[in-house]
Amino acid sequence: MIKTVTRKDVSDHRTASSCWIIIQNRIYDVTSFVPHHPGGSKLILNYAGRDATKAFEEVHTGLVLEETLQADALVGELAVEEISRAGTAEQSIEDLRIESERRRKPPLNQILNLRDIESVAEKVVSRKTFAFWSGGSEDEITLQQNSKAFSRFFFVPRVLRRIQHCDPSTIILGYHSSLPIYASATSLGKLAHPKAETNVTRACGKLGIIQMSSTHASSSPSELISSRIHSSQPLWFQLYKKADNQVAATLIRHAETLGFKALCLTVDAASHGNRERDLRAQFISEDDEVRKGVEEMGESSAKEDMIDDEDVNLDGTSGALLKGDDADMTWEETIPWLRSVTKMPIILKGIQCVEDAVLAAESGVDGIIISNHGGRQMEYSLPSIEVLNLLRKQRPDVFQRLEVYVDGGFRRGTEVLKALCLGAKAVGLGRPFLYANAAYGENGIVKTIRILERELITDMRLLSASCISDLRPEMVERVDVLAQL
Amino acid sequence: MIKTVTRKDVSDHRTASSCWIIIQNRIYDVTSFVPHHPGGSKLILNYAGRDATKAFEEVHTGLVLEETLQADALVGELAVEEISRAGTAEQSIEDLRIESERRRKPPLNQILNLRDIESVAEKVVSRKTFAFWSGGSEDEITLQQNSKAFSRFFFVPRVLRRIQHCDPSTIILGYHSSLPIYASATSLGKLAHPKAETNVTRACGKLGIIQMSSTHASSSPSELISSRIHSSQPLWFQLYKKADNQVAATLIRHAETLGFKALCLTVDAASHGNRERDLRAQFISEDDEVRKGVEEMGESSAKEDMIDDEDVNLDGTSGALLKGDDADMTWEETIPWLRSVTKMPIILKGIQCVEDAVLAAESGVDGIIISNHGGRQMEYSLPSIEVLNLLRKQRPDVFQRLEVYVDGGFRRGTEVLKALCLGAKAVGLGRPFLYANAAYGENGIVKTIRILERELITDMRLLSASCISDLRPEMVERVDVLAQL
Amino acid sequence: MIKTVTRKDVSDHRTASSCWIIIQNRIYDVTSFVPHHPGGSKLILNYAGRDATKAFEEVHTGLVLEETLQADALVGELAVEEISRAGTAEQSIEDLRIESERRRKPPLNQILNLRDIESVAEKVVSRKTFAFWSGGSEDEITLQQNSKAFSRFFFVPRVLRRIQHCDPSTIILGYHSSLPIYASATSLGKLAHPKAETNVTRACGKLGIIQMSSTHASSSPSELISSRIHSSQPLWFQLYKKADNQVAATLIRHAETLGFKALCLTVDAASHGNRERDLRAQFISEDDEVRKGVEEMGESSAKEDMIDDEDVNLDGTSGALLKGDDADMTWEETIPWLRSVTKMPIILKGIQCVEDAVLAAESGVDGIIISNHGGRQMEYSLPSIEVLNLLRKQRPDVFQRLEVYVDGGFRRGTEVLKALCLGAKAVGLGRPFLYANAAYGENGIVKTIRILERELITDMRLLSASCISDLRPEMVERVDVLAQL
Amino acid sequence: MIKTVTRKDVSDHRTASSCWIIIQNRIYDVTSFVPHHPGGSKLILNYAGRDATKAFEEVHTGLVLEETLQADALVGELAVEEISRAGTAEQSIEDLRIESERRRKPPLNQILNLRDIESVAEKVVSRKTFAFWSGGSEDEITLQQNSKAFSRFFFVPRVLRRIQHCDPSTIILGYHSSLPIYASATSLGKLAHPKAETNVTRACGKLGIIQMSSTHASSSPSELISSRIHSSQPLWFQLYKKADNQVAATLIRHAETLGFKALCLTVDAASHGNRERDLRAQFISEDDEVRKGVEEMGESSAKEDMIDDEDVNLDGTSGALLKGDDADMTWEETIPWLRSVTKMPIILKGIQCVEDAVLAAESGVDGIIISNHGGRQMEYSLPSIEVLNLLRKQRPDVFQRLEVYVDGGFRRGTEVLKALCLGAKAVGLGRPFLYANAAYGENGIVKTIRILERELITDMRLLSASCISDLRPEMVERVDVLAQL
Repeated sequence: MIKTVTRKDVSDHRTASSCWIIIQNRIYDVTSFVPHHPGGSKLILNYAGRDATKAFEEVHTGLVLEETLQADALVGELAVEEISRAGTAEQSIEDLRIESERRRKPPLNQILNLRDIESVAEKVVSRKTFAFWSGGSEDEITLQQNSKAFSRFFFVPRVLRRIQHCDPSTIILGYHSSLPIYASATSLGKLAHPKAETNVTRACGKLGIIQMSSTHASSSPSELISSRIHSSQPLWFQLYKKADNQVAATLIRHAETLGFKALCLTVDAASHGNRERDLRAQFISEDDEVRKGVEEMGESSAKEDMIDDEDVNLDGTSGALLKGDDADMTWEETIPWLRSVTKMPIILKGIQCVEDAVLAAESGVDGIIISNHGGRQMEYSLPSIEVLNLLRKQRPDVFQRLEVYVDGGFRRGTEVLKALCLGAKAVGLGRPFLYANAAYGENGIVKTIRILERELITDMRLLSASCISDLRPEMVERVDVLAQL
Repeated sequence: MIKTVTRKDVSDHRTASSCWIIIQNRIYDVTSFVPHHPGGSKLILNYAGRDATKAFEEVHTGLVLEETLQADALVGELAVEEISRAGTAEQSIEDLRIESERRRKPPLNQILNLRDIESVAEKVVSRKTFAFWSGGSEDEITLQQNSKAFSRFFFVPRVLRRIQHCDPSTIILGYHSSLPIYASATSLGKLAHPKAETNVTRACGKLGIIQMSSTHASSSPSELISSRIHSSQPLWFQLYKKADNQVAATLIRHAETLGFKALCLTVDAASHGNRERDLRAQFISEDDEVRKGVEEMGESSAKEDMIDDEDVNLDGTSGALLKGDDADMTWEETIPWLRSVTKMPIILKGIQCVEDAVLAAESGVDGIIISNHGGRQMEYSLPSIEVLNLLRKQRPDVFQRLEVYVDGGFRRGTEVLKALCLGAKAVGLGRPFLYANAAYGENGIVKTIRILERELITDMRLLSASCISDLRPEMVERVDVLAQL
Repeated sequence: MIKTVTRKDVSDHRTASSCWIIIQNRIYDVTSFVPHHPGGSKLILNYAGRDATKAFEEVHTGLVLEETLQADALVGELAVEEISRAGTAEQSIEDLRIESERRRKPPLNQILNLRDIESVAEKVVSRKTFAFWSGGSEDEITLQQNSKAFSRFFFVPRVLRRIQHCDPSTIILGYHSSLPIYASATSLGKLAHPKAETNVTRACGKLGIIQMSSTHASSSPSELISSRIHSSQPLWFQLYKKADNQVAATLIRHAETLGFKALCLTVDAASHGNRERDLRAQFISEDDEVRKGVEEMGESSAKEDMIDDEDVNLDGTSGALLKGDDADMTWEETIPWLRSVTKMPIILKGIQCVEDAVLAAESGVDGIIISNHGGRQMEYSLPSIEVLNLLRKQRPDVFQRLEVYVDGGFRRGTEVLKALCLGAKAVGLGRPFLYANAAYGENGIVKTIRILERELITDMRLLSASCISDLRPEMVERVDVLAQL
Repeated sequence: MIKTVTRKDVSDHRTASSCWIIIQNRIYDVTSFVPHHPGGSKLILNYAGRDATKAFEEVHTGLVLEETLQADALVGELAVEEISRAGTAEQSIEDLRIESERRRKPPLNQILNLRDIESVAEKVVSRKTFAFWSGGSEDEITLQQNSKAFSRFFFVPRVLRRIQHCDPSTIILGYHSSLPIYASATSLGKLAHPKAETNVTRACGKLGIIQMSSTHASSSPSELISSRIHSSQPLWFQLYKKADNQVAATLIRHAETLGFKALCLTVDAASHGNRERDLRAQFISEDDEVRKGVEEMGESSAKEDMIDDEDVNLDGTSGALLKGDDADMTWEETIPWLRSVTKMPIILKGIQCVEDAVLAAESGVDGIIISNHGGRQMEYSLPSIEVLNLLRKQRPDVFQRLEVYVDGGFRRGTEVLKALCLGAKAVGLGRPFLYANAAYGENGIVKTIRILERELITDMRLLSASCISDLRPEMVERVDVLAQL
């Protein structure tokens, strides 16, 4: 029978040498786990001797406790009379700010474009979460250039052609898609919405576009599969490959069995990017909650002029997530090994130059995604649309040998059309789905797709393109100087 | 005999299922018309059970009621003792702001250039009207580039030539014009001035330049014709072609019979542009008047997180105006059909690339207008002056085969001179005439033309050009880098 | 014997039909002169019936009254007992502001560069004067580009060469100059300092550089000649040629007789530029003094919506000054005529393109000044340093056939060095001498020249150039892209 | 026996004709030295009759007094009872500001990058010191371009290569270095920290990188040598060569004997740059302390409109330091002479163009540093990374003939990697070490190096470079247009 524990009992174990926490009214002794916490020991110690339910639920799905803690970690349950107090947890100033913003957000029918949704999302999530989502590497040059580069590509619109009927649908990797876009992989969807990535699955199903699910999604692969609108709705599986081939193979086979239709191997994350905005967010929180927690533990934070890097998490969220990943993947070994493990088509996500696009074609993969990880990995990687343009100019043959997708900063129908004119088969959007989920849930995602559909059809008509195959390279002109004004 | 109705009676019919409105002291039952209102049902429902005279008169000319409502729509007249109350309509805060600004506007003799007038106009019209006039598509890149592109073209001024005598007059499509400019087509002139486009007709007549009148002008074609200063004053007719050829032919023949001298077919509006500034203006008004009206009808506007696009007008003003237009015009069918319908010279308005300029020459039309609809249609269409420059560089022969006009962002004599040096026969200005009409009426339009005349003569002299034919391509140099500083 | 008049008598003549004014205690009837006043009738009517001494003295030298008014214009003198009241003229708010700024200006030894002096000058003169000095044409693109263009030219500094001894002196048109710069022509020097351009003469003489004096200088040619430090100090004469050859010839011969050493014919002012900053300044003053004067005359200024250009001076200060100038000068007639009138070397001021530089060389003149009149004439004329660079690239032979000078935006020793590397013999500075004179008088001008000397020597050494002839085209590199950052 | 003097006695000698000062409780008569003070007589007169210990200690090391003053300059010692008062010296507002900022600076473990440290340093030193450190010549164009130029160079990152093991170490001039960077020479380290440059020596020793020590370091060569972590830690000696060869030779031989491993001759400082930010700093101080001192001496500072340059120090800090240096060094004489004086390898610091890099290779020196002295000497010298890129493109052979280093604006690992890809053997950083020393002392310098190590390894991995020799020119692309957005 399970032991009954009081909050007072728990509060006696609030140091690194004996650390208990409360999660969903159960008490766990996490002392031995503290040094192994992926997000750094500090994050967990902040809740030592206290209720960690809220922080836990923000990023974890239910299975994590069983998977990560030892069987004997469960100390007991809160006494019944104390449980009610959990519901009256004090709200932080940040919580109050968010609640107030949620009440004041504009109705969904006043949202005109994707940036409108982004600005709502920025207000209704914590500053720390938004820093994690929206930030890029170091000075965020590639992050910014991904967006700004579009303004160098102008259209050459034609007139006096029939465009009353205009069809933006296409075939992607053999699957029909109502639009030439797909929902790209993003991590930790619970930070956006309690239903996490399953909201994306449902919205994509309803409107007929493909979703790519991340290894780091909050929703498990099986949750996503069972959230489909119908059984033929295509989902793709994005893989961060672990160094341990056995672990990786198990994950891949699990996805294939569940019914995922393609395997997207991320190749641009052999090291985690230096995302300073994300790193800096931990110092913000120190000013209020964390600092309080640390002080309670009798430690001083006054260590200035001392070199003590271990005290700070310099990996950030992404560093924690990528721990244990394979930094020795190669063209020669990894691709053939993948082929031996799965029958799913293979797509390489994170190609950043023409040379590697050619190597990909030679390696026999089925597709590539020109991507710099949304400006979150290699700082000063070229913007995706520029790499796509270089590939079109230097090696147009590659577009015949595999399907080329692209992501990075796409927010407008015109931007998608520019990529399609240059030869992309489809365009991935990541952050916009996180923002929509955070701001308006599943309906926000539906709205996001509808906005893109409306923009795509309007601008195809104005270009005099009545279907996707009418979009040709000669309809786009790269004009440096115009972009500068 | 017509029935007498009280305001109280009218106010009992204020829902979509029974909607009466008062216009010019008459009561109409518009219930069956509500769903067909071009500007969206919401706009009309806002006045359900109330006096709509002011809003109606802002955009409609007198004939509209007869043309659009059924015979039995007229319910009756206001009782005489209630009519006086119409004159004491409450003024909104916006009305008061405008009145105050009108009193404080600078005297016309302190206006130095066209931008001065624009800034007056911005103050003396409603925010909604100014958003409709001044806005462009989406992020307004083409709108901005139309203007900024001029700064890439510098002059090569010559010295020591006779320029005491300097003549800026020219011949456009066979008609003498005192200046190498014309007033281009603009919509809904009543938003600017009660006399709408007839003010433009008179001012153009007085100063000897051509006016092109829009299908969507508030003043009817016959009103414009009868406003001419003398019977040989040339007017051009701009056509938005309806899908129904019969309707279109009737309109064209009517214009020709009235005495219009050219037919300008708009070819860049097969779909209406995504003009977000215009769309967003409806949300501003919701914050005050419209919201109030909606609430009175017992509906809640709290629909956040619900997908309900039908509730919002996503077409905007332009979408409403272009409804029913022909989206299947072609080079092969439309041009010959036009020739069969009219003897007026044909000009294509909205050519956006060299290829279509060549097709136009081959199609045998009399002129083209290089135009992107003032940045209001295809976002990221190239700025007009750049397309003109490309045509000059790549296909100078086109200038021999038809007359080339250009519009888009012209505000200065120097900008007009740059286009003329590159081969344009004349330059169209649209918004400046709206702004002048709104700010100072007919005298404002006269002033606008005089300002341009003064700038043109000053700068022709400083270039050492004593007549229009002295303006040559070698007098303009495109220097990218200078524009960037 | 001269009549005695009271202030009361004068105040009875304050309309356009009978206009008396007081200047230096004398009363003049200027009724017949009012319509011919170069600055517009309004300016003079503002002082109708009042004392105009202060306004008169600001811009006029003593001889003007005799030259312009008829003999019988002198009505009489102020009664002695009323004269003292002239000294107690009320100070305007602007006067008080200027006085206060003059007290607070930094000591001259804290001035480090020419822009420091400019910012002092901006504070210690009236806003109207500063607008006249500092403004350019229309949107002031060429004005700004003159300065910004320098930042496209970088140096290629050499090392390990002897530069302990470094000599910045040179020979200009046969005259020794201690520095490769000269004081260029500027108008209305009395606005800067009571001693006007004679301060420039003295400072240039002391430090050994050439002064070019303007036709529109406040100091007369003979005043300047007699202000020289020694009789061999070279002065140049700048000519605005009148349409009447006889008048022009008299002026030229007078200058030659007085001892001027060169004739600089301005060729870029066949029409006066559209200087809106200058024009707008008259509206500022209307808000206080002028408006008051107009109202006293019983006229209303409420003429909005009326076209009444005659009411406003659209020529501005420059238009007034250039009235009557020759707008029909030609290469074929004007240059030979000049040669027939004078033996002074001839320099053309205002060459703006390579073609005209070549024509100048063929016409046999002795020098040209590449200049766009400081951005005050043709808007969008290329910046001077760019025209110089084009001449160097396209027609280096011209530098052998005549001396090439340049002006326009030069404020730094580095900028002067860039022009010298590209082949200029000397660089003219205009506004800096006005600013220095206004801010600190003759000492300010001396300081200006010393600052340039110090910058020139420092940077010649850092370039490893020990004399002017060491400055070569290969020491300057035009790098567009750097200038953009 | 030494005389006892009271503070009252000292205060009687507070004019230029009899000037006593107190330093470390001793009284000196510096009357004859005042006109020779390298920083200008004003600085020293400010302390006439007062205690100058604090100001003295800020910039001077202990040996200066003996070296510069005559033996009889020592007047006596403070009476014992007055010494204690020295400790109670009043703090200026600036001192108080700095103390407050020091207390509030962030703990070192919250520092993420080098700019973070710079912004701390800006707060915790005097404004005058920061102006001296951070400023450049004139308008600081080259200073700014040094940094901005990096943003024109993008990476071409590769994927699917083994990078688990990643080694950023290299060999520089035969010495192993843990990172491809070195600490460059900087002056007056005592302004940053009491232990001055010895902190840099220790930190570099601990982390295995080379330090180059300046002729103008506050720490003497022997202090630095004895601060090494171990006897084989390599130090380089930077030389400002005096005009007197004998003096220079003595200095070089002294360094060689002490154990310095290379001689870095500065060649870009034949004249001192016109550093206006540094010059202007003296006027700031006049507003408080200095002015007060001057006034006490009975002099008025009201000299406006007077030319009195001698009153102001127009050389600035750098001018004072460079006095007496050799401005007649040549390729032909100076390099062979250096070879005759020392066996140390010779490096030329301050090469600014391809031509001089070639001359250096021909002269047989061992290395060059492409440098413009951090934008502090020749204004409009090209940014270092651009000169490096030109050398790579035009004369790749030079990289085979000597080692090429580069400095100027480097703050990020990515910037260092760009230079290495282009062929640089190592990158020098100067100001960052000053800033780190001022903000956090030796630990700050250690942190600085660790930050760079972390950035270098992260970005080498993301580039797929596992060692320094994997960095190739084809991994960097210069893309002008991207930098402009």
